[in-house]
Parts: sequence; structure tokens; C-alpha cells
Amino acid sequence: MQHEASADSEKLYFDDLHVGQRFASHEQTLDEEQIRAFARQFDPQPFHLDEEAGKHSLFTGMVASGWHTAAITMRLIVDSVPIAGGVIGLGGEISWPGPVRPGTSLHLETEVLETRASKSRPDRGIVTLQCQTINDHGETVQKLVTTIVVPRKT
Amino acid sequence: MQHEASADSEKLYFDDLHVGQRFASHEQTLDEEQIRAFARQFDPQPFHLDEEAGKHSLFTGMVASGWHTAAITMRLIVDSVPIAGGVIGLGGEISWPGPVRPGTSLHLETEVLETRASKSRPDRGIVTLQCQTINDHGETVQKLVTTIVVPRKT
Repeated sequence: MQHEASADSEKLYFDDLHVGQRFASHEQTLDEEQIRAFARQFDPQPFHLDEEAGKHSLFTGMVASGWHTAAITMRLIVDSVPIAGGVIGLGGEISWPGPVRPGTSLHLETEVLETRASKSRPDRGIVTLQCQTINDHGETVQKLVTTIVVPRKT
Repeated sequence: MQHEASADSEKLYFDDLHVGQRFASHEQTLDEEQIRAFARQFDPQPFHLDEEAGKHSLFTGMVASGWHTAAITMRLIVDSVPIAGGVIGLGGEISWPGPVRPGTSLHLETEVLETRASKSRPDRGIVTLQCQTINDHGETVQKLVTTIVVPRKT
């Protein structure tokens, strides 16, 4: 089941979530200036700042910082996974199997991998999400498996 | 061995790195407006935007987005771990054991956990780093274990 979220959509509680449930986001395009602006502040390495410098790196061209992709992914999670009380992550595993070049449009596909009621806190559960950030060629550029805290309906 | 990096320090190649090697960063303070600016762009949830809204959340106060802490951590890695060719991460495991409140000063302690020469690519190796982002009370607010690609001296 694909869930298309909107600003008005109902918020989901722990008991509304089930393994295999999916969410799809809108697209967000990353241009060269956005990549540079993020890099200047958080990851000022030549291959994130300049096309020519990128050519002389392992990336063979300018690429976005992986943490920029992660930040945009969070934005797409907030916009497409309508959890009651907000999306509160405890952590996760992240990998960047492919580069994000200037001009790439990204979208997010999220799937519920596991749901687990908290034993110590009856008011909440722990949900594991797999979030794949995908470019306009259908290639996954970031894979994130993250656990979030989700309130139960009271 | 503690390595204090400066802009002029020598860059490190794979064979310069060994298990147990440590790097320390300078401090970076995160104020309320920086937390809000990052959140507006990447994680626009009430508890990252407003102290009053934060009080009514699981965080019991305004906190920085975990991805903001991750981005600042990357900046501190770039500033304190002088890898030849730049810090190029393949991915890792991230967790946020504690909140980052407005006004917190963060610094980074990095330790080399593993070094592994590449079998297929004799010009490089894979190095696992543990990066602990620590607040001004000595509490770890983010733990990142990440693998990076490091060139060998040719």
C-alpha cells in the first residue's frame, strides 16, 4: 500500500503502522549552488565546491556532500511519512552507493521494516524504516535504515 | 597519540594511519538561530523550531535536528582529520544518545578503529573511524562509526 501524504493527511500512530507499509515522497532537485552552499558551511572539500576540482577526485566530478543528501532525505521523510508527534529518530545505518551530481532530482521511498512495542514505555513503540533516496535514473544514492519512536494512541 | 590538525599540517595517507590513533577538533557552538535555520530547510518539525513547542514534545525542550549535528560533525571531521585527498565516506552507523540544546558547544573526538588495504585497488585502503560528538558537559550527543576511502602513497 502506497501512502501519499499531504499537509492535511491524518497522522499515524504506532498501531497504524505495519511491516511492508510504504510511503513515497515528492521530488526535490539539487542544483550546483545548493550543493556549494551546504558544502561551504558543513563539508568544505574541493569536490563539493567545484566541478574542476571534482574531476581530479575519486568522484570524477562535483558531487553533493553525503550529509547534504541525508539532510534532504530528512526533509522528504518529514514531508511524506506523517507520524503523530513528529519523526524522532534514534539513529541508524546510512550508506551512499552512488554520487549525487548537480541538477539531480531526488525522491524518497520509505518502507516499514519492523514494529516493536516498547516494554518499558506503554505509550510508545519503536519502528524501523528503510528510506531509499533515489535519483532521476532510478538509482539509489542513499540507503538509510533508521529506528524512530512512535507514540501509541491514548 | 593525539593529533592536532592545522590548515598547514601534513596530509595523512593510508600507511600513516593506525588503530588507536586519535584526533581532536576545536569547539563549535550551536545557537538557537542556527538550529532554526537548518530545521526550516531540512527538518521543519516544531521541536527544532520553537522552545515552547519543544516543551510539549518527547524532547521536553527545543533541540537541534540530529542531521544538523551530523552536518556539524562532518565539518569538525574535515577540520581535524587531515586525510590526503579528502574525507570520503562510504557510510556508517549513527546514533544520537542525547539532545543538542541551543547554546551547546560541540567538539569531536575521532579514533581509528580499523585499517584495511584494498585487495582490488592497490592505490587505496578502507579505514573505519569512530567519531564522538561531545557537548560541553562531556556527554556524547552523537556517535558515528564510518568507513572512509584513503589513498596510499604512490
